[in-house]
Amino acid sequence: MGSAFATPLRAGGHDVRVWGTWLDGAILETLRRGEPHPGTGVRLAEGCALHDAEDLPAALDGAEVVLVAISSGGVTAVLDRAAPHLPPDAVLGLATKGFVDTDDGPVLIPDAVRARVAETRLAVIGGPCKANEVAAARPTLAVVGALDLARAEGLAEAMGTPVYRVEASADEAGVEVCAALKNVYAIALGIADGLPTDDSGGGEPWHDLRAALFTRAVRELGEATALAGGDPATPYGPAGVGDLEVTGLSGRNKVFGTRVGAGERPSVALDAMAAQGRLVEGVPAARLARGWVGPALDRFPLLAALGDLLDTDGSPGADADARQRIVDAALHGR
Amino acid sequence: MGSAFATPLRAGGHDVRVWGTWLDGAILETLRRGEPHPGTGVRLAEGCALHDAEDLPAALDGAEVVLVAISSGGVTAVLDRAAPHLPPDAVLGLATKGFVDTDDGPVLIPDAVRARVAETRLAVIGGPCKANEVAAARPTLAVVGALDLARAEGLAEAMGTPVYRVEASADEAGVEVCAALKNVYAIALGIADGLPTDDSGGGEPWHDLRAALFTRAVRELGEATALAGGDPATPYGPAGVGDLEVTGLSGRNKVFGTRVGAGERPSVALDAMAAQGRLVEGVPAARLARGWVGPALDRFPLLAALGDLLDTDGSPGADADARQRIVDAALHGR
Repeated sequence: MGSAFATPLRAGGHDVRVWGTWLDGAILETLRRGEPHPGTGVRLAEGCALHDAEDLPAALDGAEVVLVAISSGGVTAVLDRAAPHLPPDAVLGLATKGFVDTDDGPVLIPDAVRARVAETRLAVIGGPCKANEVAAARPTLAVVGALDLARAEGLAEAMGTPVYRVEASADEAGVEVCAALKNVYAIALGIADGLPTDDSGGGEPWHDLRAALFTRAVRELGEATALAGGDPATPYGPAGVGDLEVTGLSGRNKVFGTRVGAGERPSVALDAMAAQGRLVEGVPAARLARGWVGPALDRFPLLAALGDLLDTDGSPGADADARQRIVDAALHGR
Repeated sequence: MGSAFATPLRAGGHDVRVWGTWLDGAILETLRRGEPHPGTGVRLAEGCALHDAEDLPAALDGAEVVLVAISSGGVTAVLDRAAPHLPPDAVLGLATKGFVDTDDGPVLIPDAVRARVAETRLAVIGGPCKANEVAAARPTLAVVGALDLARAEGLAEAMGTPVYRVEASADEAGVEVCAALKNVYAIALGIADGLPTDDSGGGEPWHDLRAALFTRAVRELGEATALAGGDPATPYGPAGVGDLEVTGLSGRNKVFGTRVGAGERPSVALDAMAAQGRLVEGVPAARLARGWVGPALDRFPLLAALGDLLDTDGSPGADADARQRIVDAALHGR
């Protein structure tokens, strides 16, 4: 996603530096040779400077905007290294989504970042943005949220192009919580896609259940936004229904869900995907989200059902009780 | 859909009569032989009485609930025949969705029905309900809307089963307008699915654009609900996001959109589908919806773009201007 952002930014005439972590050395070499990014199949936009992991201070020197697209498990460690080198006025745009466990329990990533970077620089980026499509300049609608609307508008204007449209929102919390939870709910949509089809319904996929789960997920995004103190409209915009839609179409969370729906045990599916280097961010996010929600969990029956599914290592495709739990959450909100 | 309703109704222990129009004779014969419905691939629930077109008075005699699932183009003609035979206390549940053209311009179907049947009997049925899945007792979440909440609750309770869950809503207008427009917006989702993939994005489908179109569609469902005087929450429940999700996954409107997205002219795709006996209800609904919206059309840029696409017979898959119009609606709301 980090290198994908180079496409709209270069189209907007900005100087762009692409920095990679200590795990990204091989990718940077590929991009230097002008070959497509192995993760997206798309070449890096022309005219970017490339920086290896140890070049972090140089990559940050004088930067006006720093976009962070580290995976959720690594974001605080990278920011601990980056913080001393961040120019004082740089705006930090967080594309990393999810929760971080702390001594005080799970917190949203911007809340963890706030402990490291001055509040006045923070913004979060949500909405449907697949890295390969952003890199290829395919059209989409994103949203930047920040506590200060002017800051959100500034970053939205800096990042936006005619095809990469970026709205601005003063609802940092709502954008963030929707973006974090959509990975969890995409697992549920994948489960519906994976359920065996041969026993009923003319061999068709379980589309009605998928749509009922989608509806339940949107309602829980609304509950989560309320719990975070966000704007009630945010779940119905690009950060909510938009990102849920795209995350439910493809990506690792949906693929993991499909495997579990088809009958694989969650632990087996997770191991198999990990062996391919595919982290499923929605799995730790489901557990952390449950902790973040705390005593309000009864307003999140789908989140609760998914958490239990992971705890019991059950498969709705192979186990009637596990399937019933998911169905009950979607249909009866319990 | 009419015969599909027999599954939850029989599961609920009701006496069920299935009546077919003068176009449905062959289907009724198939069902009488105990064979699967040719449209759904699923057998009729056991224990239903079957009534041919000329049996309309007998089919309606003493009925407590009459569910109407005629295609939108034929609903008023059928109701004109049925009205004299409707028992005075029967509740009419409308599963037919869309607009009807009248001398006063396009109106929503329940408003056309209100001219034929006493207001105090009307309810509308929305939410994700594919006929083959309802017939097969697959789980889903529906909603009944009526001006009188008690009437909606009564019908919801009568129709509902543990797998066919039916919510009740006092927002007849919102349920109806969302149900009518989702067919139109499913065409847009299909267009994104059909766009050629070989030129960019690593050969992947245009998922981001699809999600941006989904977001725009949800926003326009919100505008339409407001215009109809409905409850602002309705578009975010089963009748809105739920039905939009399922209609965008499969069905004729989505298939038509996919063909147009892939490069076929709308008129050619429509003729080809008509030759297979497949009516695309979203096409007349798009034109009628534009008339229903009237001077508020500037709040419906996606509806306007789809209407223009049909007028000009353009294809976003083959014509850059036609594609740009759809993209502009999704990204820029213009």
